[in-house]
Amino acid sequence: MFAKHYLAEFFGTLILVLFGCGAAVFAGPEIGHTGIAFAFGLAIVTVAYGFGHWSGAHVNPAVTLGVLIAGRMRPQRALGYIVAQCLGAMAGAAIIYLIATGQGGTATQFGQNQYADGALQAALVFEFVATLIFVSMILGVTSRAENALIAGVAIGLTLTAIHLVGIPLTGTSVNPARSLGPALFAGGIALSQLWLFLLAPAAAGVIAGMGQRLLERP
Amino acid sequence: MFAKHYLAEFFGTLILVLFGCGAAVFAGPEIGHTGIAFAFGLAIVTVAYGFGHWSGAHVNPAVTLGVLIAGRMRPQRALGYIVAQCLGAMAGAAIIYLIATGQGGTATQFGQNQYADGALQAALVFEFVATLIFVSMILGVTSRAENALIAGVAIGLTLTAIHLVGIPLTGTSVNPARSLGPALFAGGIALSQLWLFLLAPAAAGVIAGMGQRLLERP
Amino acid sequence: MFAKHYLAEFFGTLILVLFGCGAAVFAGPEIGHTGIAFAFGLAIVTVAYGFGHWSGAHVNPAVTLGVLIAGRMRPQRALGYIVAQCLGAMAGAAIIYLIATGQGGTATQFGQNQYADGALQAALVFEFVATLIFVSMILGVTSRAENALIAGVAIGLTLTAIHLVGIPLTGTSVNPARSLGPALFAGGIALSQLWLFLLAPAAAGVIAGMGQRLLERP
Amino acid sequence: MFAKHYLAEFFGTLILVLFGCGAAVFAGPEIGHTGIAFAFGLAIVTVAYGFGHWSGAHVNPAVTLGVLIAGRMRPQRALGYIVAQCLGAMAGAAIIYLIATGQGGTATQFGQNQYADGALQAALVFEFVATLIFVSMILGVTSRAENALIAGVAIGLTLTAIHLVGIPLTGTSVNPARSLGPALFAGGIALSQLWLFLLAPAAAGVIAGMGQRLLERP
Repeated sequence: MFAKHYLAEFFGTLILVLFGCGAAVFAGPEIGHTGIAFAFGLAIVTVAYGFGHWSGAHVNPAVTLGVLIAGRMRPQRALGYIVAQCLGAMAGAAIIYLIATGQGGTATQFGQNQYADGALQAALVFEFVATLIFVSMILGVTSRAENALIAGVAIGLTLTAIHLVGIPLTGTSVNPARSLGPALFAGGIALSQLWLFLLAPAAAGVIAGMGQRLLERP
Repeated sequence: MFAKHYLAEFFGTLILVLFGCGAAVFAGPEIGHTGIAFAFGLAIVTVAYGFGHWSGAHVNPAVTLGVLIAGRMRPQRALGYIVAQCLGAMAGAAIIYLIATGQGGTATQFGQNQYADGALQAALVFEFVATLIFVSMILGVTSRAENALIAGVAIGLTLTAIHLVGIPLTGTSVNPARSLGPALFAGGIALSQLWLFLLAPAAAGVIAGMGQRLLERP
Repeated sequence: MFAKHYLAEFFGTLILVLFGCGAAVFAGPEIGHTGIAFAFGLAIVTVAYGFGHWSGAHVNPAVTLGVLIAGRMRPQRALGYIVAQCLGAMAGAAIIYLIATGQGGTATQFGQNQYADGALQAALVFEFVATLIFVSMILGVTSRAENALIAGVAIGLTLTAIHLVGIPLTGTSVNPARSLGPALFAGGIALSQLWLFLLAPAAAGVIAGMGQRLLERP
Repeated sequence: MFAKHYLAEFFGTLILVLFGCGAAVFAGPEIGHTGIAFAFGLAIVTVAYGFGHWSGAHVNPAVTLGVLIAGRMRPQRALGYIVAQCLGAMAGAAIIYLIATGQGGTATQFGQNQYADGALQAALVFEFVATLIFVSMILGVTSRAENALIAGVAIGLTLTAIHLVGIPLTGTSVNPARSLGPALFAGGIALSQLWLFLLAPAAAGVIAGMGQRLLERP
């Protein structure tokens, strides 16, 4: 029997990177940050409703860590999710590469995350706080069965709001897999700063999971 | 007894072309690609909730092919849907012509799809992958009865996300009928490149339908 | 006993004009046509969910005519709705006047509808077709009880899509009351062209109602 | 037993200020007023679905006053909500300070509300009328149990519509806490004009609550 939930996480993260980072790469100058913010958020809507019934549509290791720490998931499956997400993000970046070079040019932009010189503290604070809010929101909305129908819209629009704030700061990650895939293709600064976009969201995901456990104690 | 489902597909595709392509033609410079992307996506919301109960609101031959191959529709009706969609897209383009010439000018823009010289590979990859995601998402969301209320919003916003990525690449088709109508009025390059916008989305729709059959095997 | 449904139509149309036309007047240069289109559409969301349980949130004589002709409303109440809508639109324009002059300037812009010289045919075709689609969509979505929760969002986003197409053509009316209020304050061309924005949407509303009767015949 | 509802109001208002004002401060030039308007509205979606089950997600003293006067809340708890909201707004502004200075610069912008010289009347009328509509809408939509699933989306999009109108007039408050937090950090004009953004929304909230009582009399 094939593991459809890992497949869903793989394709879901591929879609997140292709839509979100792809919008930045191919249409950034035309759609601006507002358009990019909606592309990322609406990618979540796409994945949550189209494929979410297979896996829950985490498409983000920080979310999977939060769900794990909140006690709603077994460690082995969480590991499988995270591997599938990272591979999916790399596949999404590969499709961006395929399209970009398929226009006859070279590919240097993949929607990679990075921060400006001297803005390390700003990047750390933003990525940590934004991921903490994002994962806490997800754990909250999915803890109520009556929200099931609307959760995908609410989570997607939350990701849009976060991108509306943070694209000038870091490009907005709040998702280690979404940072990893493009960084591997872009190299350079994106790769040397990648540690921040792996660690800050992951730490925030863990703390959001712990907060949820505290809140839900009887 | 009149065939209301074919009528709904005709008017639904007319609305998709009039709103989406019409926004590009009449308001493109003011609303930009973000506005055009929402016009296409919100047209789906219009059709899904206003007229979807008659026909399911495919308004796209790639979607109808996916539904057919997934085994949810009879071939004869699928053919009728596709004919109605193509006629509806032509009628939508005709209304754009009527308005454009009704401003006292000539009409050369119909929101037609096309790709730049040397960008054939990019266009093929984008149209195929984006349609594969779009039709797979639609088959997924409509396979769950509990999604019925929100499916039209989720599908529409997915189409918006796809347009946010792809307008600079091809104008974004993912829909053979939406490409056919405007190309017949625009002629020129749009007509000579039309084969790509018929074949790539249609092939992706067929493969999405096959994928859905595989996934839903017990 | 006070007639709350007339009051709801009055305030609802006031909100539509204040949000939609107000966005054009006070923020037009900053938010552009995309922002104005969302202001009109989201005003419908505001009214539908906040006040719609009192009156159904028509806030548009073309909608009331469609509902009347479709046989879902008595003529006397339809007349009361239309009077309340026209008064509400005038009150909305009056608040715009109050704010505009309260900034120390004169008030010449009220988000009034008008078309360019030589564009009469374009304006007629657009207003008639767009209103026909809008009212037909509303009659369709409200004919299904299962859509009750989402109808306000779907109708509002439809109005946004219509504005994304039509602001450069006519400013987008599809609503005789929304045209009347601002025209009375703006005067000039808006007043001399007002007949079109009263007649075309009203005629389309009537025809949409007739179409709905035909479609729903057993 | 810890008071989770106060904690939810604290964090909810923090999120509203961080997303809404943060978008204005860090991304304003890129996303424009339309993007800022969505950041404020989508912050409400975030809070309503992620944390609303703890407290109802008022995140606004004008809303709490309206709910209190409408007779749906005890005075002592209302006071606690308002204190938590004001502290949360200050914490949100503090995080903006932390990020802004963490980029190596000084922090002078916090998304504070203010009006231009000579525009006092415009500011008063706009803030009063907009808050009256906003709080009345919230009291209306939350008075119907059948709206529970969609209320957060409808309220958030209403706040977006209000921002689409009012950012050029006052920056748009309709929320005393949202004005207080940034003003304390920004000082200067924002502090000397703060009285208006405390009083006008608060008065409108009280009147909306009285209106709701009148409307709901049997």
